[in-house]
Amino acid sequence: MSFKKLDDLGRRLESLEHALSILGADEATHMAVGGGEKRAEAMASLAGMYHAQATAPEIADWIEAAKAEDLDTDRKLAVAEFERNYINATCLPTEFVERRTAATMRSEQLWRELRPRGDWDAFLPALEGVVALVREEAALRAAATGLAPYDALMDQYDPGNRTAEIDAVFADLKSFLKDFVPEALAVQEERLARRPRKTLNAPYPIERQRELGLAAMRATGFDFTHGSLAVSHHPFCGGVPTDVRMTTRYRTDEFLSSLMGVLHETGHALYEQGLPRDWSHWPLGKARGMGMHESQSLFVEMQLARSPQFWEFMLPLVHQHLGEDAVPGWEIEDILNEVNHVERGYIRVDADEVTYPLHVILRYELEQDLVAGTLEASQIPEAWDTKMIEYLGISTINDPKDGPMQDVHWPGGAFGYFPSYTLGAMIAAQLGTAMARDLPDMGEQMRRGDFAAINRWRAERIWTEASRHSTPDLIARATGEKLDADHFKAHLRRRYGR
Amino acid sequence: MSFKKLDDLGRRLESLEHALSILGADEATHMAVGGGEKRAEAMASLAGMYHAQATAPEIADWIEAAKAEDLDTDRKLAVAEFERNYINATCLPTEFVERRTAATMRSEQLWRELRPRGDWDAFLPALEGVVALVREEAALRAAATGLAPYDALMDQYDPGNRTAEIDAVFADLKSFLKDFVPEALAVQEERLARRPRKTLNAPYPIERQRELGLAAMRATGFDFTHGSLAVSHHPFCGGVPTDVRMTTRYRTDEFLSSLMGVLHETGHALYEQGLPRDWSHWPLGKARGMGMHESQSLFVEMQLARSPQFWEFMLPLVHQHLGEDAVPGWEIEDILNEVNHVERGYIRVDADEVTYPLHVILRYELEQDLVAGTLEASQIPEAWDTKMIEYLGISTINDPKDGPMQDVHWPGGAFGYFPSYTLGAMIAAQLGTAMARDLPDMGEQMRRGDFAAINRWRAERIWTEASRHSTPDLIARATGEKLDADHFKAHLRRRYGR
Repeated sequence: MSFKKLDDLGRRLESLEHALSILGADEATHMAVGGGEKRAEAMASLAGMYHAQATAPEIADWIEAAKAEDLDTDRKLAVAEFERNYINATCLPTEFVERRTAATMRSEQLWRELRPRGDWDAFLPALEGVVALVREEAALRAAATGLAPYDALMDQYDPGNRTAEIDAVFADLKSFLKDFVPEALAVQEERLARRPRKTLNAPYPIERQRELGLAAMRATGFDFTHGSLAVSHHPFCGGVPTDVRMTTRYRTDEFLSSLMGVLHETGHALYEQGLPRDWSHWPLGKARGMGMHESQSLFVEMQLARSPQFWEFMLPLVHQHLGEDAVPGWEIEDILNEVNHVERGYIRVDADEVTYPLHVILRYELEQDLVAGTLEASQIPEAWDTKMIEYLGISTINDPKDGPMQDVHWPGGAFGYFPSYTLGAMIAAQLGTAMARDLPDMGEQMRRGDFAAINRWRAERIWTEASRHSTPDLIARATGEKLDADHFKAHLRRRYGR
Repeated sequence: MSFKKLDDLGRRLESLEHALSILGADEATHMAVGGGEKRAEAMASLAGMYHAQATAPEIADWIEAAKAEDLDTDRKLAVAEFERNYINATCLPTEFVERRTAATMRSEQLWRELRPRGDWDAFLPALEGVVALVREEAALRAAATGLAPYDALMDQYDPGNRTAEIDAVFADLKSFLKDFVPEALAVQEERLARRPRKTLNAPYPIERQRELGLAAMRATGFDFTHGSLAVSHHPFCGGVPTDVRMTTRYRTDEFLSSLMGVLHETGHALYEQGLPRDWSHWPLGKARGMGMHESQSLFVEMQLARSPQFWEFMLPLVHQHLGEDAVPGWEIEDILNEVNHVERGYIRVDADEVTYPLHVILRYELEQDLVAGTLEASQIPEAWDTKMIEYLGISTINDPKDGPMQDVHWPGGAFGYFPSYTLGAMIAAQLGTAMARDLPDMGEQMRRGDFAAINRWRAERIWTEASRHSTPDLIARATGEKLDADHFKAHLRRRYGR
């Protein structure tokens, strides 16, 4: 029976994925410094085995034969996802993959070296090479999938997302933010005049911050029998669904960046822990995509953890773990002053939720042009600057380090990924609206630190659905409507507007 | 070129080994409790891939062809080790391996369940099944290697070791210990009458014990750029040579068991860290075998860390890390009273270095008879008891839990492994004699905590030799003579005798 062959293949691939995920998390947390070279060699070799097994020609026959078999609904959907993965994995010739891997590895290394001094001119030839390869890749993926070139790139990260829909949603959001950013800044100025930012009572010992983070994870539903928290230079949520490896990093002069980071990663972790267990070895059993994953982290971070209700339960935990004098005289509004601070800045990863989408839309527009060939890599700095001035009123023309050299995505060849971040924020807001309809008591539950119903709602509609539907279908089924920027706009208005 | 094919095979196998080693260490240290099932599945699948790749029929052709190639000495030796490994991996039919794996897994599970209540009768049928399979395996391995059945089993763990030699060495040691154990106990009684055992000043906080252990590792030469120390229920030394994962466990009521355990595992770690780097992916590049590995851990634990000279440098470290009052009023002799305490006991793993060999020789004799068919599993309790009374003067006939049910080896089907422990102790003593000849200043160096020359001596003679020679040849080359119990006997006499 051909489905059985696919099922066995899924188990073999899951084992290699398991090894790669745990080795990757281990590398960032527990590996000895001198272990890197052999680790890289081992992981490259395992990735090669994965690729060889995932692209074996006989799989195409198994898929065709399985389609003709009498299967239940889950298995039918599973075959479709096996096929989607197989096409994605095989549509690039080996010769091209090797060429692209070599080029993007070199370009990423060069970027790490040149970024600190913002040497755009020295970096440009490498980026030009990457752009040329990305155009080639987009054409190959377009041919294999029947999608438009940029859509074919984006489809790897968020199956079903199309520029035809996203262009309109982003345009709506952009035009809203044009006026809303100044409004939010004015409102903030007035508020800070009434209630200035308070000082922290540092230092905050790492061990206590860790206990606070664990308490926040526990309260919001993280399952410690299937995961843990460690320390790494760049926080992440990795591992496998049965053993989620979350990390954070600590500063001793403040505690909010680690705590908010922990809550963000907890959102990712809940999604992974909530996936269906029985078919974790089928592509169908994986989380849907990057946008949906980001929606789950941003749901916890933005919809829950930056709200006043959340802090009614969280502030006592801060005192419990960091001491009564941790934030002396602070009220919930003082915490919100910190965590919801809005600022026009250069750097995407440092941006607040109001200005963040503008950073993303800028990149989304530029990379569409780069893929289409209507923009060349050499023209990026000027195009970037024009949009930065238009969207955020600031110029980076003399500072490529904090302009087009700030992200790893383009040097690494990951085009089509950026929109996921803002789609995630919009999906989170739309889920928030729908949830508030179903759970009118949601605010009260948050005040009590009770996330059982809130998590159950997402578990039923998102987590246990895994990859059963395309990203747009999953949104529509969970919220009753297709993606609409209005929910995110309303969310921003409530939190930051007049 | 066929050697190139073997070289590439070695790299693929090394990557899978790397994954299995790190996943294994991770499982015991950082894995979430609920992650075990998927981890077991992943590791079984990777082990299957390893076995499939290591036993591919074309490898036989590559080995034959490589033998005819014009290779340098290292590569010639490498081909021989590739062949030895290939024969060991392929000499058992898949059908047999599956049968044996299923039986030993079941028997080991049953043992874990029945051991706490010492239910020998319920366990016996499973053990009888394992013994039958071990006899079958010994015959298959004997046919493939041309060795005697028990030698063929032992050869997996210590290549080149033969009962013909070991029988004589063990007989010599056994007859010595018959008289020496009473002597050591009498000497100890007299010493304790003069200097009674002192009390400890517990509790000893775990974090401080950890710092002490790290200091001991650092001093004795552990390279922290290629390894680390964590906590696990059963201490081990795992990982890979470029990233050695050592573990210990802590009690707060005393600190010596963790510290001595750390020093033991450091001995294993130094061997791994000292292996040649360039051909870590050839079988030739691995540590020689279990006996030689144990000799390296016991060299650090027994030859170095239980000597008075060692404690001249170690006792100040204890005070530095655990506090001036950690062992109030203790002198070096008081520490030695603790770490060198001799006692006739039931349990092998709790035994001191004087009585330990008798536990091993008892098992070595019984398992030879079991493999030969001159002893049946049902006769073990009586045979065990007879020897326990003869060798150690104690009876376990009414207590199978602390008698023949105490070890995991037989339930797990690992016959031929036990001798490694005592061979390791004897090799360590023989290395100690040879080293003292070459480094007359060795005691003085230990007093200063200077292990550079001591480690260099072992690096040159043992670690960098990897698997270039059989175990007996490696001993002879390192010490100038074949294995001789006299060195171990002399070591025991010096430390415990009149």
